[in-house]
Amino acid sequence: MQNLIEYEQSTGLVREIYDDIRLTRKTDDINNFWKAIAHHPPTLQRTWLMLKEVMGGPGELDPLVRELIYVAVSATNGCHYCIASHRAAAVSKGMTEGMFGELMSIVGAANLTNRLANGYQVPLDDKFKPPA
Amino acid sequence: MQNLIEYEQSTGLVREIYDDIRLTRKTDDINNFWKAIAHHPPTLQRTWLMLKEVMGGPGELDPLVRELIYVAVSATNGCHYCIASHRAAAVSKGMTEGMFGELMSIVGAANLTNRLANGYQVPLDDKFKPPA
Amino acid sequence: MQNLIEYEQSTGLVREIYDDIRLTRKTDDINNFWKAIAHHPPTLQRTWLMLKEVMGGPGELDPLVRELIYVAVSATNGCHYCIASHRAAAVSKGMTEGMFGELMSIVGAANLTNRLANGYQVPLDDKFKPPA
Amino acid sequence: MQNLIEYEQSTGLVREIYDDIRLTRKTDDINNFWKAIAHHPPTLQRTWLMLKEVMGGPGELDPLVRELIYVAVSATNGCHYCIASHRAAAVSKGMTEGMFGELMSIVGAANLTNRLANGYQVPLDDKFKPPA
Amino acid sequence: MQNLIEYEQSTGLVREIYDDIRLTRKTDDINNFWKAIAHHPPTLQRTWLMLKEVMGGPGELDPLVRELIYVAVSATNGCHYCIASHRAAAVSKGMTEGMFGELMSIVGAANLTNRLANGYQVPLDDKFKPPA
Amino acid sequence: MQNLIEYEQSTGLVREIYDDIRLTRKTDDINNFWKAIAHHPPTLQRTWLMLKEVMGGPGELDPLVRELIYVAVSATNGCHYCIASHRAAAVSKGMTEGMFGELMSIVGAANLTNRLANGYQVPLDDKFKPPA
Repeated sequence: MQNLIEYEQSTGLVREIYDDIRLTRKTDDINNFWKAIAHHPPTLQRTWLMLKEVMGGPGELDPLVRELIYVAVSATNGCHYCIASHRAAAVSKGMTEGMFGELMSIVGAANLTNRLANGYQVPLDDKFKPPA
Repeated sequence: MQNLIEYEQSTGLVREIYDDIRLTRKTDDINNFWKAIAHHPPTLQRTWLMLKEVMGGPGELDPLVRELIYVAVSATNGCHYCIASHRAAAVSKGMTEGMFGELMSIVGAANLTNRLANGYQVPLDDKFKPPA
Repeated sequence: MQNLIEYEQSTGLVREIYDDIRLTRKTDDINNFWKAIAHHPPTLQRTWLMLKEVMGGPGELDPLVRELIYVAVSATNGCHYCIASHRAAAVSKGMTEGMFGELMSIVGAANLTNRLANGYQVPLDDKFKPPA
Repeated sequence: MQNLIEYEQSTGLVREIYDDIRLTRKTDDINNFWKAIAHHPPTLQRTWLMLKEVMGGPGELDPLVRELIYVAVSATNGCHYCIASHRAAAVSKGMTEGMFGELMSIVGAANLTNRLANGYQVPLDDKFKPPA
Repeated sequence: MQNLIEYEQSTGLVREIYDDIRLTRKTDDINNFWKAIAHHPPTLQRTWLMLKEVMGGPGELDPLVRELIYVAVSATNGCHYCIASHRAAAVSKGMTEGMFGELMSIVGAANLTNRLANGYQVPLDDKFKPPA
Repeated sequence: MQNLIEYEQSTGLVREIYDDIRLTRKTDDINNFWKAIAHHPPTLQRTWLMLKEVMGGPGELDPLVRELIYVAVSATNGCHYCIASHRAAAVSKGMTEGMFGELMSIVGAANLTNRLANGYQVPLDDKFKPPA
């Protein structure tokens, strides 16, 4: 398990990113995820700037829908840290317990049919093929 | 690759499900997926009833959001049939090209951070732990 | 896509393994899988000896059950080559179309519940924990 | 982690499903999995009815073989809860330690060859292709 | 399948990124991957800048090793496009056929032992645990 | 969780393999992984001989590069035991913290682009296709 770089220990680029996380998230609290990957500052910087833009930047999908998609991927991959942290983020953006149940039922169904489609080696319908 | 049971060849339970698919989807066209798994009628029946309810039944998530989640899981698993068919379904429910781009960028970011969280073995923050 | 080393082109260790495959499988036909990985003879040798033992050696699981397990894993991973080749092997060992349908329905159900267990972060029951 | 709905707290549809689980499994004990997904009663109902039929209904595959397949998928996906609970179920249906070892060796071999087939991009043999 | 945005059709940010790809890769040829994701310019920009830095920027790992790692991940995930394109990139940076064989044998072995470790639920050795 | 077969308890083939592990690794310490799979001696033997050859035998890839590839696969699959044990092995063979950061950034980037290539269903460039 990775030891963590706390805010007080941070300097230079790491401190700069930590400050931007605090400002953007409007809380002094910084998730362990960032404190772990801070051991490689360029990864911290790239990952934070990507997430900030993808999850919080302008776009057609609203913030809650973005979090639902994030949880769906994380549950499919079995990443416990990401499930826990993004489920909390989704709740803070309005996810009800009923929505979470619906989300999980879709994730389950998709994982099931993905394997049926693979296992039966279903040929693609002409209507789904690209125009020549 | 699986040979397909066409509507004209179907009988009994398979015909019954095919008729329900046609009625529900409001089209005579039946996707190859159903025609392939029809070789095992109980699987056809269970899978159809599940999808009908999960993707089209009452709930808090709107139909487009449900399809976005489906595509997110299918892209993560690399199921080409499901990506193609549910991307088409999402488009029919209003997904713009911009939304698809945002969806893919979230799916990509989640797949990336899932592996960083795994690789760095990030310990769960206390605030994400369940109450004792 | 990998070019293939045909039997007639094979020499040395590769020829030796090819001969063992023919003898063991009781056919002159050698699957493309072996002809592709033959580009790295130690991988060909190790993989063949492992499969020969795991799938055909003495054991408590009968040959058909072993193939069902193989197909289950391959469908879960979405490996099209392995699904096609091991489905054929399962059929040759007695898998009926009904059995394949049951197999797929179990694979689908397990993939679904795996994600529910992940997504809901279900705590392990005491009875499933190891004795202290 | 998900808090659990205990039997004593359950009402309505959840109580009904819990009673069916107890009756079917012939034990008062209900696994945490069901107590977690009970937060979304339709998911509880659908998942239980599917598992009851797929794992315990009539069919050509015997109950132990079904559990072996379940464990194979769960080990491939790395779902710890499902590995632990279905390994216990398999043991209760007759899986010996030797069978578990064979199962794991097949799961391992399939996961290895799935990647060799992917990595070498092995072209499908004509004999595995569907008839035109 | 995604239609592609050719260089001649590109404008604005997409043209800018295409020009940087050409300059960096020292070829007028642009891979289909970029031409597909160019439908969402911010994804094109973010992904290109990330890859340019991660695969070609300064660092302790040499360019060939980086490509080997890329192929290992892509083979594990079964992404055919990425396997083909990064295998070609690895060859251009010096990967011999022998190295590819070794790479695949490591990828296969890791995928096998990952499932044995999961399936046997191996407890972490004290020496691998973080200091208290 | 699997109980472990300690060195002192081992006999026959298991003892023989344990002795070879000690000799090869130049330490009396045997990782829990081997002590867990020792419950099925043929799996222990096959897995050990494979790893000994693949990770330590002659070849063009140096030992550190082999470990980096192993960690990349294990992080992609989310196998915590294998991440922890092979990260330690990589450190013992010279992996710096900077190298680990670079490794993780490549693993993350590949997992991201694998999904973009899947999701956009990018058609393979002619130059990546095999000669006719």
